[in-house]
Amino acid sequence: MAGKVYIVGAGPGDPELITLKALNAIRKADVILYDRLVSSQLLKYARDDCELVYVGKARGEHTYTQEEINRLLLEKALEGKVVVRLKGGDPYVYGRGEEECMYLISNGIDCEVIPGVSSILAAPLYAGIPPTNRKLSSSFAVVTGQEAAEKKVLRVDIKAIASSVDTLIIVMGAKRFKEIVHELMDVLPPDTKIAVVVNGTMDNQYTLTSTLERSMEIADKVKPPAIIIVGEVVGLRRMLWVADKKS
Amino acid sequence: MAGKVYIVGAGPGDPELITLKALNAIRKADVILYDRLVSSQLLKYARDDCELVYVGKARGEHTYTQEEINRLLLEKALEGKVVVRLKGGDPYVYGRGEEECMYLISNGIDCEVIPGVSSILAAPLYAGIPPTNRKLSSSFAVVTGQEAAEKKVLRVDIKAIASSVDTLIIVMGAKRFKEIVHELMDVLPPDTKIAVVVNGTMDNQYTLTSTLERSMEIADKVKPPAIIIVGEVVGLRRMLWVADKKS
Repeated sequence: MAGKVYIVGAGPGDPELITLKALNAIRKADVILYDRLVSSQLLKYARDDCELVYVGKARGEHTYTQEEINRLLLEKALEGKVVVRLKGGDPYVYGRGEEECMYLISNGIDCEVIPGVSSILAAPLYAGIPPTNRKLSSSFAVVTGQEAAEKKVLRVDIKAIASSVDTLIIVMGAKRFKEIVHELMDVLPPDTKIAVVVNGTMDNQYTLTSTLERSMEIADKVKPPAIIIVGEVVGLRRMLWVADKKS
Repeated sequence: MAGKVYIVGAGPGDPELITLKALNAIRKADVILYDRLVSSQLLKYARDDCELVYVGKARGEHTYTQEEINRLLLEKALEGKVVVRLKGGDPYVYGRGEEECMYLISNGIDCEVIPGVSSILAAPLYAGIPPTNRKLSSSFAVVTGQEAAEKKVLRVDIKAIASSVDTLIIVMGAKRFKEIVHELMDVLPPDTKIAVVVNGTMDNQYTLTSTLERSMEIADKVKPPAIIIVGEVVGLRRMLWVADKKS
């Protein structure tokens, strides 16, 4: 008899931002496959005999491909196990959780998805930057800053998007920071506010603020994982609660 | 000695989607001011002697204005109390949490903000609709569908936004559903997929799917609280886990 797979959002970094539902899944898991950005503190909730499998990318050693992760999930479920696939943030926000869920369901496996607090919202919040505000922002867009390294990734028309919304949030944009700023300079005023939250909601979170025209001054400190926020709401930071130090 | 105010996201409806951090704040609160969309089950975590104040809108009786809520938070904090301001979803996504935080900080009150699982992401997830997908969506935008009832709300250029992103998510759009569809028809192909998730993540969640051109057929069933999703990703619902029944 086949087991069940829970595809679980672990939240943005701060281990206290895990949901009760996610915690319950972790506690009953026979196997947990976890990603790089998942806090090690969350794994402490697992049973003593739970098998922990690190499938994250970028630790130099063997890297699991998406196909290998899919197959491992299927294999463990077919052994009758309760499997938790623990992913940073939310499984459906650039998380490929839907690819895993689709694969499992198409193979007849019982599968449930548990949302998580997404870093696209929590990192700005911890930096004192709300994506919406009655006076400054009625709309926001979220885009990936990652180059189409894999051909499958769709091209983002960042200029059109930046021109149409009040607040722009860019994920996975650290490596292309300068390029992104140049693109934005074509369509937004040079004094448009920009912030970069690095290690959002983690103990070592820090926030850089600038304007588009001056942002080359902060470029050296922009490192992944980073959330970039562009728009007037960045200015609210000085009046709001922040988890890191205001500079 | 003044107390402290926690501005807390209660999550989208399913009480199990509360975070540990939010739960800890609820457990130590002397007073909780809570909104309409907060699950009553979450209030059970409060201490027996905790004062519970309903400040939600739309129950026919006395309605607290934002100014009254601000003043009540300040008053309770000045009495030295631990105050929790419990809000549906995430405090900074159309939640006015930042207005409350700003007011308290400017009055010298210690204030902390705790993010929540936002219904803009969790309602689509529970309906089997991911906002991003490698093949179908690299970007998404979130807009409010609410008319500028209060003059302070900025106008949303929904046509420009819909034209520039892969997936559009509209909150608070139930009452203006037909009008919104007409606006979208001006810029998107008539066969563009649309879904409406009503009561997202709650026991009585249901999901309507259609295309723009046929969406008048579902209009009668669109009721608040609703999340509207527009784009190709709506089609993934039939292949993914859903919390409600697929029709």
